[in-house]
Amino acid sequence: MAFSLPESALKRLIEDLGTDTVFCGTSIDTRYCTDKTSDFRAAPDIVLLPRTTEEVSKALRICHAFRIPVIPRGAGTGVTGGAVATSGGAILSLERMNNILDLDEKNSTITVQPGVTTENVQKKSMSAGLFYPPDPASLHDCTIGGNVAESSGGPRAVKYGTTKDYILGLEFVTVDGTVMRSGGKYVKNATGYNLTGLLTGSEGTLAVITEIILRLVPAPKESCDILASFDSLDSAAEAVYLISAARIIPATIEFMEEDAIRFVARNAEIEIPMSSAKAHLLIQIDGESKGEIRRKRRALIQALNPLSPGIITARNEEMKATLWSARRGIRPAIEKESPIFLAEDCVVPRAEIPAFVSSVKQLLNRRGLKSVIFGHAGDGNVHIDVLKYDIPYEEWLKLLPDLKKEIYACAISHGGTISGEHGIGSVRKNYMDLAFSSAELSLMKQIKKAFDPEGLLNPGKMI
Amino acid sequence: MAFSLPESALKRLIEDLGTDTVFCGTSIDTRYCTDKTSDFRAAPDIVLLPRTTEEVSKALRICHAFRIPVIPRGAGTGVTGGAVATSGGAILSLERMNNILDLDEKNSTITVQPGVTTENVQKKSMSAGLFYPPDPASLHDCTIGGNVAESSGGPRAVKYGTTKDYILGLEFVTVDGTVMRSGGKYVKNATGYNLTGLLTGSEGTLAVITEIILRLVPAPKESCDILASFDSLDSAAEAVYLISAARIIPATIEFMEEDAIRFVARNAEIEIPMSSAKAHLLIQIDGESKGEIRRKRRALIQALNPLSPGIITARNEEMKATLWSARRGIRPAIEKESPIFLAEDCVVPRAEIPAFVSSVKQLLNRRGLKSVIFGHAGDGNVHIDVLKYDIPYEEWLKLLPDLKKEIYACAISHGGTISGEHGIGSVRKNYMDLAFSSAELSLMKQIKKAFDPEGLLNPGKMI
Repeated sequence: MAFSLPESALKRLIEDLGTDTVFCGTSIDTRYCTDKTSDFRAAPDIVLLPRTTEEVSKALRICHAFRIPVIPRGAGTGVTGGAVATSGGAILSLERMNNILDLDEKNSTITVQPGVTTENVQKKSMSAGLFYPPDPASLHDCTIGGNVAESSGGPRAVKYGTTKDYILGLEFVTVDGTVMRSGGKYVKNATGYNLTGLLTGSEGTLAVITEIILRLVPAPKESCDILASFDSLDSAAEAVYLISAARIIPATIEFMEEDAIRFVARNAEIEIPMSSAKAHLLIQIDGESKGEIRRKRRALIQALNPLSPGIITARNEEMKATLWSARRGIRPAIEKESPIFLAEDCVVPRAEIPAFVSSVKQLLNRRGLKSVIFGHAGDGNVHIDVLKYDIPYEEWLKLLPDLKKEIYACAISHGGTISGEHGIGSVRKNYMDLAFSSAELSLMKQIKKAFDPEGLLNPGKMI
Repeated sequence: MAFSLPESALKRLIEDLGTDTVFCGTSIDTRYCTDKTSDFRAAPDIVLLPRTTEEVSKALRICHAFRIPVIPRGAGTGVTGGAVATSGGAILSLERMNNILDLDEKNSTITVQPGVTTENVQKKSMSAGLFYPPDPASLHDCTIGGNVAESSGGPRAVKYGTTKDYILGLEFVTVDGTVMRSGGKYVKNATGYNLTGLLTGSEGTLAVITEIILRLVPAPKESCDILASFDSLDSAAEAVYLISAARIIPATIEFMEEDAIRFVARNAEIEIPMSSAKAHLLIQIDGESKGEIRRKRRALIQALNPLSPGIITARNEEMKATLWSARRGIRPAIEKESPIFLAEDCVVPRAEIPAFVSSVKQLLNRRGLKSVIFGHAGDGNVHIDVLKYDIPYEEWLKLLPDLKKEIYACAISHGGTISGEHGIGSVRKNYMDLAFSSAELSLMKQIKKAFDPEGLLNPGKMI
């Protein structure tokens, strides 16, 4: 259903917000037509770049009056088409609302506008010896507002949890322009419905987030990185269990299966260590003191030893970078080899990873598809990137729906679900009925209606 | 609005669920007429004691068909009248659903029915060296289902967070008897609206929780308890800041102001250490090794030393019990001195505790009321118990509404809110407009409507 913008609406938006806030037609930067989803594009009718909560409220009030769909947007680093105007309307980008409002050391909180990058939240916190742990791969570019809207994760989830575990309070604007708040600078709250929890991961379909209060923790003082090779993904998974049974919680436990290692090794400019292994685990431990790290490292090596033929500890920053080079090199290598690819990020109970990966590999092999599988072994989040290579475009498009359905069904049959950290957006919306019953979906639609009765906020996304 | 039970409904409930599941009239145990709220009582028309999710579903289906209000109930240890049938109807007690379904060491999760006590969740977890940290004061009696419904906290929140931080998944039954699920055995999830988060703390007004998947962490191996005295509440608060500035996160930081200390000292059967102090901090540190505890204790003492004239470290279990005796003795002493009392549990940013406590003391003094103030200094959760003593009952009832309003307004003016861990229930419902705008309340009512259009689930509670 395409939307057509009334002239009077545009006039009113420009009158109330100014020509430096409202963009349309050829003045729209093409970056607002995409996010980081492979092969996904749609043009909005207007782009709005408010600077304040008041301007967000004004913009929403006008769009609401003229029934203009509004697509809230952070940095556009999402990979589900969530921030793309798939049925036209107004992109409401929060990028100009990029002020850090308050670093409160006494309460260990930071209050920020949604357009602040995750990296800047981390840097500002670190300046006071405090730590904001969530670390999505795009943290240099992505914004904290986007992280909240997408319930973003990252490698550190195994020890520190995800974005949702750090949000103490929100200011948000509802579809008709009403400014609301939930939560505050306190970790305990049993007052009213948990709107903060509900808005987290709601993908801009319920409200526009305009201010975020985040909880910070003391920054770890020491860390150590270890790369371990394995003869099978099963023994890597067994090692993850032994680590947990030894009651060690590393900050990260990343895994790469053999195709991923080989793939990066082929594409990387530097040598990837132990590149003939069947699986890698890349583990970071952190803590308060050198002694603590030594103790944890000893226990970790003891847990890894019976299973891992090769264990490398990074002794310095250069070595650390080498160990992470394979893991960090995956996405660039993929984009280089096959600019069009399918990126899935199912989650399963962590003990199910080997069985799930093996099932997914089988179903991809049956179709003759090349894939790269890696992810977060500590929290069960498995990245499955399927590469198009030279499959004719029409054929590729035709195979995707069934392929996605098979992958999701496989995750669900292993006790998992569709997405661990990327969300649903546009590209997975049609598969929600694999994860939810029709009654569950209908309940979600009623919740959507409670916030946005006419379906104007990020229409066509998630549900 | 009183409800009257149709004969046909009772007949149908007994037919479908059996006489050993459905109780009415004189067969209703009087404990179902109260929870632990001081001076609060109302009788239900029926009490239902289902054993399975299927029976919960059946019960709800029948109650829905006959428009019978349903009040879900755990152990009835709440202190807000939340589990009391204030407008009649059916108490749906989950006490018989008390099975631990699965302790999954590989995934560090435990799956339980709602009627399992919090203590049994902890014991079972501990049997595998795993730890379920939330520790509401009533943990020996209260049930995990009640904890989820109330978003319960406890002293350990400062380090470990509250109940909401441990719930990975839920099975729940909606008002018409439909069984639904959200989440699973994975910490990351970006698939659909966060129903788990929304249901947590919804006080039985949205759905009946029938199964809970909890995340567990490695159990700390060592701990140490320290009691520190102070010459003012301000210096105790400054000490809390210095502890946090030294980047130590204790497992608990409990505080008691002078009236609380004196009050318990007067009522206790054993001697309370340093009972002439103006404030106490009771701190527990925990960790992986004796060395870690030593290091943390050293840093902690260093932070406390400039401010605290008296610091006692518990060297053994007996000593530990002595240190905690004052803190643990508060409620029993209150119930002994004045069986009728007002129990508030506001939350403020932790740095605001001294200012807030001093304001509350002032407003209580102006009214000539005696109070005991204590709570969780690390997370800003302040317990304010106001004792009736010999104030005539009618007069007491008359003063409560304004008194509560003043206390809540005071918490809110200090950046806090009405309740940190007890919830809203019946007794605070009329004060929600102090914490929320009418637009925010109306949004909450829309959410309630999305789940329960006819308002049959725990009517008259929270909103």
